[in-house]
Amino acid sequence: MKLSKRANEIQESPIRKLMPFANAAKAQGVHIYHLNIGQPDIETPQEMRDVYRTFEDKVLAYGPSQGLDLYRSNLVRYYKKHNIALTTDDIIVTTAGSEALVFALLVTCNPGDEVIVPEPFYANYNGFATMTGVKIVPLTTYAENGFSLPGNEKIEALITDKTAAIMMCNPGNPTGAVYPKSEIARIANIAKKNNLYVISDEVYREFVYDGHAHTSILDIEGMDELGLMVDSISKRYSACGARIGCLISRNKDLMASVLKFAQARLCPPTIDQLAANACIDIEEEYFTNIISEYDNRRNFVYEELQKIDDIICLKPTGAFYIIAKLPISDADHFAKWMLTDFRIDDETLMFAPAAGFYASEGLGKNEVRLAYILNKDKLRKAMNIFQKGLEKYIEIFEK
Amino acid sequence: MKLSKRANEIQESPIRKLMPFANAAKAQGVHIYHLNIGQPDIETPQEMRDVYRTFEDKVLAYGPSQGLDLYRSNLVRYYKKHNIALTTDDIIVTTAGSEALVFALLVTCNPGDEVIVPEPFYANYNGFATMTGVKIVPLTTYAENGFSLPGNEKIEALITDKTAAIMMCNPGNPTGAVYPKSEIARIANIAKKNNLYVISDEVYREFVYDGHAHTSILDIEGMDELGLMVDSISKRYSACGARIGCLISRNKDLMASVLKFAQARLCPPTIDQLAANACIDIEEEYFTNIISEYDNRRNFVYEELQKIDDIICLKPTGAFYIIAKLPISDADHFAKWMLTDFRIDDETLMFAPAAGFYASEGLGKNEVRLAYILNKDKLRKAMNIFQKGLEKYIEIFEK
Repeated sequence: MKLSKRANEIQESPIRKLMPFANAAKAQGVHIYHLNIGQPDIETPQEMRDVYRTFEDKVLAYGPSQGLDLYRSNLVRYYKKHNIALTTDDIIVTTAGSEALVFALLVTCNPGDEVIVPEPFYANYNGFATMTGVKIVPLTTYAENGFSLPGNEKIEALITDKTAAIMMCNPGNPTGAVYPKSEIARIANIAKKNNLYVISDEVYREFVYDGHAHTSILDIEGMDELGLMVDSISKRYSACGARIGCLISRNKDLMASVLKFAQARLCPPTIDQLAANACIDIEEEYFTNIISEYDNRRNFVYEELQKIDDIICLKPTGAFYIIAKLPISDADHFAKWMLTDFRIDDETLMFAPAAGFYASEGLGKNEVRLAYILNKDKLRKAMNIFQKGLEKYIEIFEK
Repeated sequence: MKLSKRANEIQESPIRKLMPFANAAKAQGVHIYHLNIGQPDIETPQEMRDVYRTFEDKVLAYGPSQGLDLYRSNLVRYYKKHNIALTTDDIIVTTAGSEALVFALLVTCNPGDEVIVPEPFYANYNGFATMTGVKIVPLTTYAENGFSLPGNEKIEALITDKTAAIMMCNPGNPTGAVYPKSEIARIANIAKKNNLYVISDEVYREFVYDGHAHTSILDIEGMDELGLMVDSISKRYSACGARIGCLISRNKDLMASVLKFAQARLCPPTIDQLAANACIDIEEEYFTNIISEYDNRRNFVYEELQKIDDIICLKPTGAFYIIAKLPISDADHFAKWMLTDFRIDDETLMFAPAAGFYASEGLGKNEVRLAYILNKDKLRKAMNIFQKGLEKYIEIFEK
């Protein structure tokens, strides 16, 4: 019996597909530094963990499909601090950002419709596009100029009668790029002129460095009808396992439809929402400390990468990823080889080969994404393994 | 800007769509007995609640996309007790049964493909079908004979070159029907003969009465390639808010593809999986007590319904729903009117009008689904309100 076409087409996650090799190495007693996935080592806030530890309900019941009212009304306050004026009705709580992305594509696109996405992009967009029958049309950006957005002409050249939306991630995963307000406004103008939705994935909102500021699509005038924002607490509170996100729009018809999709799956996890809710009034110091920590890690990883000959890598200004273009031809093979063959003191490193973050065939084959989500001591060892491994790999396979 | 076609087409949940009227009534101080939704009042097991209360990890991290190994290996033991022989690799943990159903449709069906589903069926199948572009082809069953399955000819008459699967719920929501092993084998034979998948939703496995036994599609010989089973802990452990389910199949290619869809959304909730895991070795007494409780409730609700003139309602043998065909023309209107207009001592009742559980236009309009998920004292009051409300409704609208 045949599987469906989409079952055959769906892309393997470049972030997770090498896990069998990592697990095999672990089974041999090898320690692996996981820079492949955005799983921070930062402690989940005590306030949040306390919610689980003090949960007293006797019945772990369904919540409302749109999310708990308590949490949604508190989210309104959270977003207000970030210049995003909302009402509770603009917010539907989702099972992490993943579900919010799926809902966003479902309500804005017919099967076969196109969504323009700056590439490299968060690889799982491919999976959500496959699920929803949407075609991702890549707008290529380049490591050489810090993955800045091309001019209007290049963007508008991609628009067809099938184009339904522009989808972007800001701050960018995997690029680390933070678009200035003028760029968000430029995208918004293109969307308004061409009657396209803008789906803005802003899960790294807090993680901006060097005095840059984050601008939400919902902080741009005139985007009430066309703007959708995807959010998640996974990175914000180092709570990836809670699976709490949300989809936000001021477009009432659109949100009424999202609610119906949300009703079909009943509700997002209940206790995890309460836990997320406990973080709303977290002290500013929490973020100051974390951002300072990530900033240090970023500087360190960036400086270490600069020591490598013929590397192309600009300093990212947001999120906690860095893309490096390496003097090799097959980063997929390099990443796998590191797991299967290379060790220093019984340790090795896992990172994400970047081709999976591109939709254009052939791009990203010599690029890797590193997530700087471990502490400096571990990063020091990890980067040493990376440098030595790369040297050895080049010696064996590229000479 | 237009929404997508599917955004306009997706069905409102018949279980939740009247919530605004319920909320309005509550705002007036009216107490509502919720027999509209399968949210049991049974306590979630202490073992499960204790997991939250003793959670000690400092970082609430991602788990594996296929679910925690610990939980999956324990699930193998759980299923073994139910005559379902599995290996860990046959199981992918999902965000509740909902996600398992979506994954099942994604990998078995192309957009436009057809799935034969005995109706009335769990209404949210419509939503998942809309999400995945699948067409549900209803196989009508009738209250008059306890919703038993029609003969092979009637089933095979529905098969076209677009048919990819038969999807069924056993024990049945909303029907309460439990198919005997011979019926499951008959469906399996039709599937094998016509090369169709069988997607079997078995979330009510434990809830069977009157000495009936539940048979899994995976307990039928020769269904390794074609059988998919959807499961959830929501009802089993009265843990609807945990959002933990799974999709199971011995078809390795199929599960390899499911894993890729699972990787796109990263993982199901982490702590909630650990909590579910704590229930694997729950004492048999837990179920004996609960099933005896539901059995009593079922008998009570059934007997109360029999007191109503001109009602058609056979005694269900599984799950915790009962469908009643009423001597009225518009159960939707009746359900809404109960919330807006009918009270006894400032109390009223919410139930699900059944038309939304049918795909065939016009069917179920005079039927309602009641979930017997409250204790007997509450059910007594609820059924009194139902009887009196129905009398009054008929007096006003049907005479």
